[in-house]
Amino acid sequence: MYREEIKVLDCTIRDGGLINNHYFTDDFVRAVYKALSEAGIDYMEMGYRSSRKYAPPAEYGAWKYCDDEKIREIIDGIESDVKLSIMVDAHRVLEQEFAPVDQSPIDMIRIATYVKDIDKAIALYERVHDLGYETTINIMAISTENEFDLVEALHQIAKTQVGTVYIVDSFGYFFSEQIHYIVELFQKHLPGKRLGIHCHNNQQLAFANTIEAIRKDCNLVDGSLFGIGRGAGNCALELIMGFLKNPKFNIEPVLKVIQDYMIPMRNELEWGYIIPYMITGMLNRHPRSAIAVRDTENRDKYAEFYNEICNHMD
Amino acid sequence: MYREEIKVLDCTIRDGGLINNHYFTDDFVRAVYKALSEAGIDYMEMGYRSSRKYAPPAEYGAWKYCDDEKIREIIDGIESDVKLSIMVDAHRVLEQEFAPVDQSPIDMIRIATYVKDIDKAIALYERVHDLGYETTINIMAISTENEFDLVEALHQIAKTQVGTVYIVDSFGYFFSEQIHYIVELFQKHLPGKRLGIHCHNNQQLAFANTIEAIRKDCNLVDGSLFGIGRGAGNCALELIMGFLKNPKFNIEPVLKVIQDYMIPMRNELEWGYIIPYMITGMLNRHPRSAIAVRDTENRDKYAEFYNEICNHMD
Repeated sequence: MYREEIKVLDCTIRDGGLINNHYFTDDFVRAVYKALSEAGIDYMEMGYRSSRKYAPPAEYGAWKYCDDEKIREIIDGIESDVKLSIMVDAHRVLEQEFAPVDQSPIDMIRIATYVKDIDKAIALYERVHDLGYETTINIMAISTENEFDLVEALHQIAKTQVGTVYIVDSFGYFFSEQIHYIVELFQKHLPGKRLGIHCHNNQQLAFANTIEAIRKDCNLVDGSLFGIGRGAGNCALELIMGFLKNPKFNIEPVLKVIQDYMIPMRNELEWGYIIPYMITGMLNRHPRSAIAVRDTENRDKYAEFYNEICNHMD
Repeated sequence: MYREEIKVLDCTIRDGGLINNHYFTDDFVRAVYKALSEAGIDYMEMGYRSSRKYAPPAEYGAWKYCDDEKIREIIDGIESDVKLSIMVDAHRVLEQEFAPVDQSPIDMIRIATYVKDIDKAIALYERVHDLGYETTINIMAISTENEFDLVEALHQIAKTQVGTVYIVDSFGYFFSEQIHYIVELFQKHLPGKRLGIHCHNNQQLAFANTIEAIRKDCNLVDGSLFGIGRGAGNCALELIMGFLKNPKFNIEPVLKVIQDYMIPMRNELEWGYIIPYMITGMLNRHPRSAIAVRDTENRDKYAEFYNEICNHMD
């Protein structure tokens, strides 16, 4: 499958940062940037631009804030066509500053939002759009949103100049038919906008669902190295590269950074196909209960976990 | 998704046996049988009926042969509606015996074959069909078969009374559109036959492809506990159960046997999403080169492995 319009974004540092409080070493972030540059990937997401008041620096690493200066340190001296993005939570905007795009190493700002916060997302969009950034609005937890509310939010977005709107299957609940349905819904209510897809791998469907979104003309797709990300993780970047036959891609540097960094990292951080996350995905629930149980001695008591969740549904 | 006609087969012991020379303990096999019985699964595959001349008993455990007597030992005293199947390789039939079905604990014999061995498969089918067994013919390595030859083989099968014909994506190469294509091809040339699907998980698409086959009316689907199987493994049985809303299913005993047996087993046996198997899947190759490299000190030299395989393609 090759379609020139399809762009690939690597969210290794951003989504992966959710499992280590964004404490990746400079060496690792630089290695990822170098590998993605050699591999022909379009975007690399460096992390969040979070409020230091909401998220105190004593508790988080540098990639929770993604200061322009910090990013410059990482990319200095590496030849690259990779564009850089950061993510901002629409409902957690406080004192964060954004320089005009021509004074920043960042190219794109991705605004993560729930449907209920769509007005905050649009306000932030207007601010950063005026500074010259490419923008996306990423609608999270889409599988639990009320469709009436969702469509209303899409109508609001349709009136803006926002470039790309993302479908985010935060809970890893969807399968192919649901992806087709939701993409068509977005297309109907967002005429002319580029669509993006970000899938979680709770049911081992992140790659499959990304393919289905691509088949339905989504043109901005997210992946992460070896699927790293919170809980079950994301669509693996290396799988996307294998599927997209873009002649500019080179998978070797990606395989190299996986073998050199991700395999050792797996001994310290947990992500991937893990039954409690499969259960929350299957039941269309936030993974927080699975995250919590993995931190206890009952981490592998799957049947008990399943029962407990089901009992809480009544 | 619920369709009464869909039947589920667990191949934990059979396909899992490929990574431990079929040396599962009686305790484990019995626990699986008990769990599947309580879970409402339709079939359990116990292993192979292999020739002891081709496969000397010094090298393999009991589930390489699946003697009727051995199976009786396992199931004795457990209340169950689970039907039992065994697999036989069409190209490795020698002195193996099969009792008439009413004198055997086995209900179904699945004949695994390449297209080139279809005449051997049909000869074996005739023999075991006459003994009263349910039968399937499982066409392996379908993603590398010449379509002319494949269609000819399907025409031969169409003339028999064989109950079910399986599509086996041995190399884990397919994605959704290819599954749709191959299912339609089978349906066209095998009118009136039930179709089965057996997927490998090299590219994390085994569950997704099983769903696509179900959407296209395949009614016999394979899974294994926690996806155990050679290399990347199979479609996880627990995922299929989550997807199929068959009211007779109960996922709890399956989760229990995973936590009690599969999690400890993962410390001794390797299966799942492992980059060399991803690479062979992506390139539509037999996993043997990946199996070989995982047994060397270069097991995690992914970039080198990829290059070596690509160089051997010229």
